[in-house]
Amino acid sequence: MKLICTQENLNKALGVVGKIINKNATLPILNNILLKTDKGRLKLSSTNLELGINYWVGSKIEEEGEITVPTRLFANFISSLPNSNVEIKLKEDVLNIKCDKYKTNIKGLSAKEYPLIPKIEAEPVFKINNSDFKQALIQVLPAVSSSESRIEITGVLLDLSKLDQNKIILVATDSYRLAEKALTLKKENINKEALNLAGDISSVIIPKNAVQELIRDLDDNENLLEVIISENQILFKFNNANMISRLLEGKYPDYKQIIPDKFETEAVVNVDEIANAIRVAGLFVSASSNNIRLKVYSNSNILEVSSEASEIGNNNTKVAAEIKGNDLEAMYNHRYLSDGFGGIDKEKAILKINSEKLPTVLTSATDKDLIYVIMPVRA
Amino acid sequence: MKLICTQENLNKALGVVGKIINKNATLPILNNILLKTDKGRLKLSSTNLELGINYWVGSKIEEEGEITVPTRLFANFISSLPNSNVEIKLKEDVLNIKCDKYKTNIKGLSAKEYPLIPKIEAEPVFKINNSDFKQALIQVLPAVSSSESRIEITGVLLDLSKLDQNKIILVATDSYRLAEKALTLKKENINKEALNLAGDISSVIIPKNAVQELIRDLDDNENLLEVIISENQILFKFNNANMISRLLEGKYPDYKQIIPDKFETEAVVNVDEIANAIRVAGLFVSASSNNIRLKVYSNSNILEVSSEASEIGNNNTKVAAEIKGNDLEAMYNHRYLSDGFGGIDKEKAILKINSEKLPTVLTSATDKDLIYVIMPVRA
Repeated sequence: MKLICTQENLNKALGVVGKIINKNATLPILNNILLKTDKGRLKLSSTNLELGINYWVGSKIEEEGEITVPTRLFANFISSLPNSNVEIKLKEDVLNIKCDKYKTNIKGLSAKEYPLIPKIEAEPVFKINNSDFKQALIQVLPAVSSSESRIEITGVLLDLSKLDQNKIILVATDSYRLAEKALTLKKENINKEALNLAGDISSVIIPKNAVQELIRDLDDNENLLEVIISENQILFKFNNANMISRLLEGKYPDYKQIIPDKFETEAVVNVDEIANAIRVAGLFVSASSNNIRLKVYSNSNILEVSSEASEIGNNNTKVAAEIKGNDLEAMYNHRYLSDGFGGIDKEKAILKINSEKLPTVLTSATDKDLIYVIMPVRA
Repeated sequence: MKLICTQENLNKALGVVGKIINKNATLPILNNILLKTDKGRLKLSSTNLELGINYWVGSKIEEEGEITVPTRLFANFISSLPNSNVEIKLKEDVLNIKCDKYKTNIKGLSAKEYPLIPKIEAEPVFKINNSDFKQALIQVLPAVSSSESRIEITGVLLDLSKLDQNKIILVATDSYRLAEKALTLKKENINKEALNLAGDISSVIIPKNAVQELIRDLDDNENLLEVIISENQILFKFNNANMISRLLEGKYPDYKQIIPDKFETEAVVNVDEIANAIRVAGLFVSASSNNIRLKVYSNSNILEVSSEASEIGNNNTKVAAEIKGNDLEAMYNHRYLSDGFGGIDKEKAILKINSEKLPTVLTSATDKDLIYVIMPVRA
């Protein structure tokens, strides 16, 4: 192997491929990154066996070859170099790197030992711009379950049943709260046939780790992300990279039925104001009770946020609200409430409340594509 | 107690007084902050028994009083409030706080239980502007010893023997490397008599914790910091605060004798370039050998930075240098070298080297007030 590429491109690639967390300590080669010349480019690959990423860097290839080197050392070294050309040369199992006045030799391990990263040879089911998909994932992620007892809700549901209406829906829940985000696609960016070829799939569940990795790797730009689906794997193509992840098995809960369609009271509030009131109320929750009370006064157009921890004190904040319906109060888990308002990226939110036995719904006042559902706590 | 102050001032005070780390878990009241009305202002105090800080906040006092409340809760609450007036009222042992639409009650503990923070009633020995003193402390801090076996070098020496020449000198060493910083004072900011009154003191040793706390609290401005010294305590007055710390006992080593005054070779280098070369070399050190080799080529005006860890690889960087003297090479501990160049806030540094048996000296090329001395490692 012998090639030249720029420090800037190589460093950018390592920002993506070099960050996969290896949880499999029994296979030390997973701490390495695979470098391989590939059709006139340098391909960098990394995997933790659950997900794998490939990233191609434009290079002047003088000699083909492949090797694996310790990821962190290689990434730290490249990031310390000046923005100039990097010459990479393999001699036996030692990678020789030169850039400006820097010269280094890094000991590698044979590429033969490196696990194969699977491929899906198929057409994309849909394309969507990077930033829209990233933002949607950020919004639903907090609601994903961390409990391993119900494996099917430890990922994000990608519901494809509305592709005919040019929509995909992302859903996450931990059974206490639920986030649902609908994304509208351009017709020309949908290829339903590709889905049919993959088997009779109407939805897939993407593991939480893959979602977190995608959020880290996707840029905030308008470039199109391509999503390719097979029976048990999903492939995301973006910029010069692709990321492949296994899918979670199991049947996702039929969540539609728990979302009420009638509400006793609706309150429109400023998101920043209520989020700060909730943060303050969070200072007065404790291990024994981490609940916050919301109280709606329809006459005075006030929503009151309060909490009490008997050992340390209590607190009460009044937030201006436009209220339709009756006076009402309900208790909520502090973190669930805080995550809910945290996901709303608009100025105003609507809180739709029934009695304390039915779920409460949060949405933005202007954009109904994001719905956050939260169960009140019984006092 | 009943008073009104601004959220902005109170929050600023808590940024200083609220950050002292309580290492004494046996005395839970040290997790609290003392609030006390004091001559028309609100005084906030905190101590960990080794050092104490007082901070005065301009307030409209309506009723005198005092109480202690949990520091972190109080600080987090105040920092979440809008920039408006804060009304504070004590009812029995509960502190009632109102600001805008926020209302809170925090349970306190009696001020009677709170340890007394000592005072020094004396004139300042010298005054110096905040930012100069802060910068000097930042420069010498890394060389302070962490080993508790020689307690006298676990602090920064404040050498006052050159007050006649309008100079104070700060020194830190861990016996492997040493940093010395001289600061020139204005004549009108020195009061040697105040020092004589404190006993026959020519130097004091300030504990590392107090130095770290000062670095955190001092602003980067031209305001004058006042330094007041007694036999076993030191008091710093700055802005609306004062900080008092015990002094370390013991005799500081006579370090002057170890600094060589003749050198075989001198090399002038760009600080950023060599600092980056050292950082890169640091990637190739290991638990078994964390040394870096510097090699000076007088003919080619090159300083070579290299390192090797047999398990992972090696590295070599050429840094342009203006060299006077002979070819020379020596090995240094990676971190000591890195700290040394890290302290130089000028563009060019001079490296003055003897053979590997004598200390090497680093200074800035333009400002000789900072001297960093480092012992080479024998290969």
